[in-house]
Amino acid sequence: MLEEGRSVAVRDFLSEHDPYDIAEFIAELEPPVISRIVLLLGDPLGPDAFQKLDTEVQVEVLQTMERPDNARLIERMDPDERVDLIKALPEEVAERILPMIAQAKRNEIARLVTYEEGTAGSVMTTEYAAVSGDLTIGGALGELRRIAPDRDTLYNVYVVDNSRKLVGVILLKDLFVLPSLASVKDVMKADVKSVHATSHVEEVVRVAKDYDLVSVPVVDTGGKLLGIVTHDDVVDVVVEETTEDMYHYGAAGEHLRYLPTNPFRLARERVVWLILLAAVGFVSGMIIHRYESMITTVFALAIFIPVINASGGNAGTQASTVIIRGLATGEVSLSDSLRIFWKEIVVGLIIGIVVAVVGALRGYVLENNIRLALTVGLAMVSVVTFATVLGAVLPLIFKKVKLDPAVASGPLIASVLDVVALIIYLEIARFVLHL
Amino acid sequence: MLEEGRSVAVRDFLSEHDPYDIAEFIAELEPPVISRIVLLLGDPLGPDAFQKLDTEVQVEVLQTMERPDNARLIERMDPDERVDLIKALPEEVAERILPMIAQAKRNEIARLVTYEEGTAGSVMTTEYAAVSGDLTIGGALGELRRIAPDRDTLYNVYVVDNSRKLVGVILLKDLFVLPSLASVKDVMKADVKSVHATSHVEEVVRVAKDYDLVSVPVVDTGGKLLGIVTHDDVVDVVVEETTEDMYHYGAAGEHLRYLPTNPFRLARERVVWLILLAAVGFVSGMIIHRYESMITTVFALAIFIPVINASGGNAGTQASTVIIRGLATGEVSLSDSLRIFWKEIVVGLIIGIVVAVVGALRGYVLENNIRLALTVGLAMVSVVTFATVLGAVLPLIFKKVKLDPAVASGPLIASVLDVVALIIYLEIARFVLHL
Repeated sequence: MLEEGRSVAVRDFLSEHDPYDIAEFIAELEPPVISRIVLLLGDPLGPDAFQKLDTEVQVEVLQTMERPDNARLIERMDPDERVDLIKALPEEVAERILPMIAQAKRNEIARLVTYEEGTAGSVMTTEYAAVSGDLTIGGALGELRRIAPDRDTLYNVYVVDNSRKLVGVILLKDLFVLPSLASVKDVMKADVKSVHATSHVEEVVRVAKDYDLVSVPVVDTGGKLLGIVTHDDVVDVVVEETTEDMYHYGAAGEHLRYLPTNPFRLARERVVWLILLAAVGFVSGMIIHRYESMITTVFALAIFIPVINASGGNAGTQASTVIIRGLATGEVSLSDSLRIFWKEIVVGLIIGIVVAVVGALRGYVLENNIRLALTVGLAMVSVVTFATVLGAVLPLIFKKVKLDPAVASGPLIASVLDVVALIIYLEIARFVLHL
Repeated sequence: MLEEGRSVAVRDFLSEHDPYDIAEFIAELEPPVISRIVLLLGDPLGPDAFQKLDTEVQVEVLQTMERPDNARLIERMDPDERVDLIKALPEEVAERILPMIAQAKRNEIARLVTYEEGTAGSVMTTEYAAVSGDLTIGGALGELRRIAPDRDTLYNVYVVDNSRKLVGVILLKDLFVLPSLASVKDVMKADVKSVHATSHVEEVVRVAKDYDLVSVPVVDTGGKLLGIVTHDDVVDVVVEETTEDMYHYGAAGEHLRYLPTNPFRLARERVVWLILLAAVGFVSGMIIHRYESMITTVFALAIFIPVINASGGNAGTQASTVIIRGLATGEVSLSDSLRIFWKEIVVGLIIGIVVAVVGALRGYVLENNIRLALTVGLAMVSVVTFATVLGAVLPLIFKKVKLDPAVASGPLIASVLDVVALIIYLEIARFVLHL
């Protein structure tokens, strides 16, 4: 339609849709075409749709626009989305565009870019509604009427004192029912939960989740209100954090956007871990090498290596899953370490004994050799118990030394356990079979 | 303090806190004590704190109360929390309490309990604000003033027609700025996103996340508004769904609350998978058994079994992590299957070649045997490529047949790959080493 010069028809068609749907619709087009459509849509739909595009696409689109259009578009984005885009721009492009942006917004950008990735400051927006506690409800309503059109996400009204220190909160809906002459200070909820700008985003999620907050206020060390993290960003943070956790946990490196990323780049993320884990595999090989004479004497020993290794690796993976996830959701914490340790010893023994009985029976039926069956059974109960405890304890240790507990991943634990399991198994065999 | 009869002091102390904090504080006390405190706190703080307790604790506390108190407490809970509790009550307790609950709420409970776990209907609340499109903004405000005190989560005002069909939405903040004589129909946003009551909760999350909704309206097949899922429940759903995914993915069974659950129950969840995976391990053992003469002839072959198995298992785990997570977040979908398939063949070949070079070099250095090195290299590139493709494709197949893709877990894929890797490796050895 654009090519036929029917711009108005395009605009009218798209205008009926939600910014997200428009973004989905135009994302696959060429950057110059996206650029034309965004400008065509005007304010606020153009910027709203634009900021729903992936940052990489935003960067490409910006570079096909005139500089003044660039600046206008960036000015109309939400503060948090804007900063993400500025961070992603090539330096020379940013330097060309920034001087054209209004001074106040430029100062705000300069302040927001300083927050490190993964902190509350890096995901907050500065578009919040705050009123003075000295106002009456009627006065606060007047103030809100003035700022409401510019605030996309106005649900809670925060109350600040003269030095902008956060002192309370009022729900928007309460403004309808509160008497208009009441003092804000008297009717506000003074027990307002907040996070520090340098707090980890996981803390933001925890506060939002525990207290069912629609937005979490972000303050500086002096308690001054700096911004808010809104419910939609809380959901985004949860999803991103979990993706990161699962990637670490699956030893898959860092998360990249799958479809647009080329296979070489995808492979690079995975291959490092794979080589590292292969190195551990070589150690297992060395151990088999050392026990060569034993294994060739009683070859049946070799037959049980896969099942013992698998049981150890899987039991370790199970325990680490439970603890890694528990730490992420706050279901368990470091202070429960001792309880977890004892509990996993018991759990490990229970599942170890069950699996050992199965293994020993299988050993007896297959080889009709009671000593071999005993070896397999003893090895399995020891390996599974050890694996369960290690799988549970390793994430706790990682957390303690401030590493991501999820890095104590399934593959890592399984590889290390292969080595341990082989030694345990073959030493038990040496003893029981008198080798 | 309670024991000293200082009830008023207890109430005054707790009243200053948030319901979540109160619940955290009283959760460890004995049920009869919790019961006394909840009643002492009165309405709304008592029910608010009570519904923040774990459902298991709620059930215990209820049974220490008089029946009329029970009914009053349950009536004052949020509709979604209330239904969760009713579902958890022993049948005879529910039958004793339900008749004392007001007829309207009882009908609502009867309707809500019918929604299956995991559907939008099962997590929605019926405490939403809806107005008729025929009203003016001033009329709608009057209506809201009437219902606002009873609605904890009033952020969006939904617009319905005479048959309660959902036709639009107005943001609460817009009510401040819209002219009071304007017709609701004329100023509402008519493109309102909703989900069906029987939709999966993942769909609710997707809609909330894509469109940044503070609440997602839930409708029946006729488009009639039934309830809303609020932002806090969206976050809860995301966290719970992810926990479930990770447990499946780690072959750890179903999620149980870790600290309060006894080790036998925890062990039961894990042991089933472990035995299943051990059975696959036995198959690997059988394969080693079949190739016994080959392995005893060239024992060096055995030395590389762990590293080849580990590389296959890890490459498969990596690929499945990427695809399982991609499916969960909507980054990839079933319609991308063919693209994923080709991409993972390329990724698998790249990482396979890198790992194979490392493996072959190691083989050559260790045994000074060029044919063995060739065997190891060829086996590694085949196994890793196969593992990568299988790891990516299996979750897609599971999704296609409507199983949870995460059940194509790391341990499951790794175990199956052990079997395949052994056969590939030993057949290549037979060919290259002329065995």
